[in-house]
Amino acid sequence: MESDPPASAAVSVLGHPGYAGRRVLITGGMGFIGSNLAHRLVGLGAEVTVVDHLHPNYGGNWANLAGVEDRVRVCLGDACEEAWMHSVVAGQDFVFNLAGQTSHLDSLHDPGRDLRMNCGAPLAVLEAVRKEAPGAKVVFASTRQIYGRPRYLPVDEEHPLSPVDVNGIHKLAGEHYHLLYHQIYGVRACALRLTNTYGPRMRVKDARQTFLGVWIRAALEGKPVEVWGGRQLRDFTFGEDCVEALLSAGGNGRAEGRIYNLGGLEVVSLADLAQMLAEVVGGARVECREFPPERQRIDIGDYCADWSRVREELGWEPRVALRAGLEATVGYYRERLGEYV
Amino acid sequence: MESDPPASAAVSVLGHPGYAGRRVLITGGMGFIGSNLAHRLVGLGAEVTVVDHLHPNYGGNWANLAGVEDRVRVCLGDACEEAWMHSVVAGQDFVFNLAGQTSHLDSLHDPGRDLRMNCGAPLAVLEAVRKEAPGAKVVFASTRQIYGRPRYLPVDEEHPLSPVDVNGIHKLAGEHYHLLYHQIYGVRACALRLTNTYGPRMRVKDARQTFLGVWIRAALEGKPVEVWGGRQLRDFTFGEDCVEALLSAGGNGRAEGRIYNLGGLEVVSLADLAQMLAEVVGGARVECREFPPERQRIDIGDYCADWSRVREELGWEPRVALRAGLEATVGYYRERLGEYV
Repeated sequence: MESDPPASAAVSVLGHPGYAGRRVLITGGMGFIGSNLAHRLVGLGAEVTVVDHLHPNYGGNWANLAGVEDRVRVCLGDACEEAWMHSVVAGQDFVFNLAGQTSHLDSLHDPGRDLRMNCGAPLAVLEAVRKEAPGAKVVFASTRQIYGRPRYLPVDEEHPLSPVDVNGIHKLAGEHYHLLYHQIYGVRACALRLTNTYGPRMRVKDARQTFLGVWIRAALEGKPVEVWGGRQLRDFTFGEDCVEALLSAGGNGRAEGRIYNLGGLEVVSLADLAQMLAEVVGGARVECREFPPERQRIDIGDYCADWSRVREELGWEPRVALRAGLEATVGYYRERLGEYV
Repeated sequence: MESDPPASAAVSVLGHPGYAGRRVLITGGMGFIGSNLAHRLVGLGAEVTVVDHLHPNYGGNWANLAGVEDRVRVCLGDACEEAWMHSVVAGQDFVFNLAGQTSHLDSLHDPGRDLRMNCGAPLAVLEAVRKEAPGAKVVFASTRQIYGRPRYLPVDEEHPLSPVDVNGIHKLAGEHYHLLYHQIYGVRACALRLTNTYGPRMRVKDARQTFLGVWIRAALEGKPVEVWGGRQLRDFTFGEDCVEALLSAGGNGRAEGRIYNLGGLEVVSLADLAQMLAEVVGGARVECREFPPERQRIDIGDYCADWSRVREELGWEPRVALRAGLEATVGYYRERLGEYV
């Protein structure tokens, strides 16, 4: 573990010269990770287009583009619409395929919608890429959820895949599409398996994106932080670190056809994480509760990633320590909570 | 290898008393395997309902129900329509979830349609089961295609899953749904991974269902049997044997939540299979040709299944030898080719 660098400055020292002046499409580009990527790419001098349908249950939020709204082309619509995606994708040099539905519980309540968002959308984007932008680099945001309950820790990319909810089944299919389109059509695609990602611009209205969002909101609103269970171990990636990984994957030919775990600097229990958050916010209360049955059925126990492959092949590693990341995140929402609830 | 029993009588000696008087739904029930299952279930005294949309590129064919059309309830429609599936599924004791798109090449040319047929349809059926018929037994027809290129032979159920086409990706998701609905909702589902299945009532119009179909048609029409490559090894399950496996899986509580490979008595090269077919038909010509590039990309090399798990747990084993199965199949199409082209 390293010392805590200042959150926002920590990662932007890395250069990504390959993006200056290039056309970059981000599906889900008004959501949490997509919008952080858009900000960074604007800073790198890229011509950025974002696609988002701004469904109220998802991560898309106009507030996420504050400061770059005049330097990003915004396309509002559904990435599942293949004919429309053809026109959006044509001429792009990079496609970050991030649009998706993230809530595990929503995927069980409305599996057909999850199918459309997590299979239909990435598939439509890939079809558009192979027909309209066959030379584009494509990076897919996959998830650790596809591993299911870990059989060993830390989990490396060879760990068996055994999704425990509909969302995981569909994200696995989404990842398979990207590898398949690389193998049979030569599409320059790769996939990153994200673990819990958090930071400014994440959804805090509810737990659809990450439980950390509702925790931070509760702490800032003076309500107790409710922890379900609490002994589960997790690793966390700060949003800016995740963005650097996406840029590294898109900018490095070695990534094509490959899969990479992302991870974090620390592995902590949820109870310890809540305690750390309470300290960062100052005076927040933590209440540990029993796991409700509906979540118990799809819980995966402990998880932490082995991210040595991405470090060795792409030179990426997480740089923002958990406390520093929480401080940056809490600072962001202290100023802007009203735009996110 | 055993001696060749008469094809049609070989397998019906097994009893399945659990189906008499029970309500059984077969999605894809006018297709190859579904209709053979319908015939057998009528013989067992079940109340059979078939769902089929009779798309011209799929396996559904009115001719397949000849002889039982008055003893089967036929529902023409799309299994993807969840609201409709609720009314069809309500009150069923068994659901054989067989509807699907089988062509690997079609899945690449129109992946969105494959998504709808191979993910949307089984998912709609499972949602209907858990809400309208939560006690029903469900058997899903999965496929060896999800293994991709075998890393070892024979392939057992622990072999890594690495689909090599869109169809395989979606069939894998379909299988995952069934196991997931068992795990989290207690749906009494299982999946059989079928290998090449052939026999009366298969599609012979083109290679969308199996290459053996077009071979038999060509041989009967006096045209050459065109073999692509020819050295690839395959195993084959005769349709009636497959039906017995489906019935065993539906009728045995031990199958719930389980996955089973099916297989065949013999492993043969495609060239040897074509030669055997030519002998059965009498005087047919075989022409071996180079693999076309489009198929090469998604070919899996040699395959044969280890089906010891299903034998040990459910007591099923293939009984119809390849030559006997080919003789029965050729005999069927000699009489009825006009109804299948």
